[in-house]
Amino acid sequence: MQRKSVMDLDCANLFEDAIGPGHGLRPAEVDMLSERIEEYTADIRKRRGEDIGFMELPYDTRLADEIESKGRELAGWCKNFVVLGIGGSALGNITIQNALSPSFGGRPAGSGGKTRIIVLDNIDPALMRDFVEFVGPDLPETAFNVITKSGSTAETMSQFLHVRDLLRRTDGCSPEQQMILTTDPDPAKSLLRRLGEKDGYCMFPIPANVGGRFSVLSAVGLLSAAVGGVDVRELMEGAAAMESRCCSDVMYDNPAALYACALFKHYENGKPITVMMPYSHRLGALALWYCQLWAESLGKRNGLEKKDIFTGPTPIASVGVTDQHSVMQLYQDGPFDKVITFVEVDRCGEEGVPICGSAGVEPQLQYLSGKSFNDLFQAELVATRCALRDKHRPNCTLRLPEVSARTLGELFMFFQYAVTYSGYLYGVDAFDQPGVELGKQYTYGLMGREGCNPPRLS
Amino acid sequence: MQRKSVMDLDCANLFEDAIGPGHGLRPAEVDMLSERIEEYTADIRKRRGEDIGFMELPYDTRLADEIESKGRELAGWCKNFVVLGIGGSALGNITIQNALSPSFGGRPAGSGGKTRIIVLDNIDPALMRDFVEFVGPDLPETAFNVITKSGSTAETMSQFLHVRDLLRRTDGCSPEQQMILTTDPDPAKSLLRRLGEKDGYCMFPIPANVGGRFSVLSAVGLLSAAVGGVDVRELMEGAAAMESRCCSDVMYDNPAALYACALFKHYENGKPITVMMPYSHRLGALALWYCQLWAESLGKRNGLEKKDIFTGPTPIASVGVTDQHSVMQLYQDGPFDKVITFVEVDRCGEEGVPICGSAGVEPQLQYLSGKSFNDLFQAELVATRCALRDKHRPNCTLRLPEVSARTLGELFMFFQYAVTYSGYLYGVDAFDQPGVELGKQYTYGLMGREGCNPPRLS
Repeated sequence: MQRKSVMDLDCANLFEDAIGPGHGLRPAEVDMLSERIEEYTADIRKRRGEDIGFMELPYDTRLADEIESKGRELAGWCKNFVVLGIGGSALGNITIQNALSPSFGGRPAGSGGKTRIIVLDNIDPALMRDFVEFVGPDLPETAFNVITKSGSTAETMSQFLHVRDLLRRTDGCSPEQQMILTTDPDPAKSLLRRLGEKDGYCMFPIPANVGGRFSVLSAVGLLSAAVGGVDVRELMEGAAAMESRCCSDVMYDNPAALYACALFKHYENGKPITVMMPYSHRLGALALWYCQLWAESLGKRNGLEKKDIFTGPTPIASVGVTDQHSVMQLYQDGPFDKVITFVEVDRCGEEGVPICGSAGVEPQLQYLSGKSFNDLFQAELVATRCALRDKHRPNCTLRLPEVSARTLGELFMFFQYAVTYSGYLYGVDAFDQPGVELGKQYTYGLMGREGCNPPRLS
Repeated sequence: MQRKSVMDLDCANLFEDAIGPGHGLRPAEVDMLSERIEEYTADIRKRRGEDIGFMELPYDTRLADEIESKGRELAGWCKNFVVLGIGGSALGNITIQNALSPSFGGRPAGSGGKTRIIVLDNIDPALMRDFVEFVGPDLPETAFNVITKSGSTAETMSQFLHVRDLLRRTDGCSPEQQMILTTDPDPAKSLLRRLGEKDGYCMFPIPANVGGRFSVLSAVGLLSAAVGGVDVRELMEGAAAMESRCCSDVMYDNPAALYACALFKHYENGKPITVMMPYSHRLGALALWYCQLWAESLGKRNGLEKKDIFTGPTPIASVGVTDQHSVMQLYQDGPFDKVITFVEVDRCGEEGVPICGSAGVEPQLQYLSGKSFNDLFQAELVATRCALRDKHRPNCTLRLPEVSARTLGELFMFFQYAVTYSGYLYGVDAFDQPGVELGKQYTYGLMGREGCNPPRLS
């Protein structure tokens, strides 16, 4: 039997009752979108499994079997597991590792895993040099997961060529044994798939109807997770539990739809900036994953009728409590142009970390006496949320009982659905990214690729 | 003799000649601010060394001597050097380490340093637990630099109490020997200073006229740099070289003033979002340091006449080429509300990193043949800049010959001056941060500190 979703969405501080008229939404503004949500869910039902596939991913138990089996094998011999990928082929992997592995290079308790997961999502020559030097002595014990849906991404393919050559030239190494290719299953579409078939590489598919930024719950995100000791079934179960809430056509039963509608109304009301601020050091990277999902899905020139609309909210990543001492001054006192989403982790269930040595301290620090870091961390979240409310700044909170594979799965699915509904509301195609094409053509032109024009250099 | 500044500011793509009328600035718009720059520089001259001190820091050779000496001593016995600090007491340290230490935990070549630098800028209980577990066995070989100007920051002081207790309770450890306190020199102002004097800790000052976000070139940023093997004199010389350019009252000779004026005009023209996008993996953290500097200095409720103005641009951190596969879609095709600042590193001087194995590859990848990662990285920067230009998106470029202590010093000083001029232009006090006070009071209230009211919980 499927378990229940445990995430809670608290929208109170988005409304005028909490933050005042002119700043908060009137309930009627959101109510009036509920009929549109009915339309959208009907359309999504039609497209599901056709041109949109992300919501099917958590139910692919055959993939989970294969991933777990391959993950076990790799964890058995790999000192390093290196993802060669960028954008949607990197951010999900980074998010999972940051969320579920202890900081400072430790491994999940009880997993027995000792594999270090590295995501190489840049081609800065200094980084590539450092990487080759770092991995050098351990190269025979290092596996590489090359991830590119198109099978032709310039950054990833140049890394692929470089590492393949390195493995070929190093005694005791073999690219066919040490590289796993994750790409489009159709050889006509992916050069990497063709290369892989020719030379007999281990390969995983990215379904045709799953784009890069929606692929974290496919082999793209799951393999490095499994190698790192993450329970991928928990991740998928969490996602499935959330999935069943987010396909509801009743807006108030559907947290993704409600969230999308409320933030869209705030955008229409003059708040184009949306801040993602998890109060959890481990969820810091989730905010970067979210930024890609939001920016690339909704930042569009053309509306669905191909007219110029140049639309889309601007996402920003923050992290609590750290950024209270950085950008929070602006969020609280600057222009009224932002909506903040907190991710709150209920730490009541876990053993607290007491602030040792706080007994009998100076009067000025007496308030810390007998308290835990949990108390202080939670007090700062509540204080910040209330201060924002009292300064008429809209904010909402996603509440989780813990940071775990299960709740992370819920978050991934929640945001993917929310951006899908947002695409309809903004009137854009949430699943393409035509805007970066010109830059790609210019790059090819500068690199001398046949048939591609370089830009005019002024 | 003082060496010359080597940073170059390229503003061409901010103007209508490059990006089109209605999108770019008319030169006259900027020209008309040149008289105001004369006023501002005159005022800064008066305030220099009085209530504003950051520009004096690079000339403090006595401090450099002390830092170098202490840094050598610490590098001699420390396995870990841990900064306990948050916001302005953390971001400069992180920026310096990321920029000047090899990735993947390596150390600067030739420095001989083996000390690992850790900046603990959050109090998430999960992070604190991981940290104590990680550092445990090496505790006797770990030094802690507690950094808080006020000497009462809740996060840092709770960490201080916790670690001091840990050291007291561990055989072979001693807080007085292993903790260095960096705080206000006035014991009447800083509790941490008083505690340090009582127990005889090693201490460094943060000058009264240097606020947290302007303190990277004081002991705040320099000590961890020195321990990590960074040449702090180079850092200071770079900053001094830039300082001598940025105090000029001739706007077109003064890159910080010109940059501030051009971006301010774009803000007035409806572009409230300013993106910092270094094309350098190592300068990724610089963008976070910049975000604090910009947001906390300019995001203000009150203008200089104490009237409500709720102003300030919203800074965003990006990194090239990585974010071309993330937020770039929005930057190129979304609303016309952003100005992008690139940081470009001229890699001509350095030995390239060839894309090995690119000879004789498939026709589709032929354009990579015989090329280096340097070629591809540079082509992507140029292509992205030109694509933005051709899509009428304002952008400018800070060009450096290399990433080094010297050029990093230039960047720090450039941005600190630029935000100072921006403060005048926006009509705000760039050196306070009153907006976060309410949240602090609410935190104290929730923690039961005497005389502090908790927020209303709804």
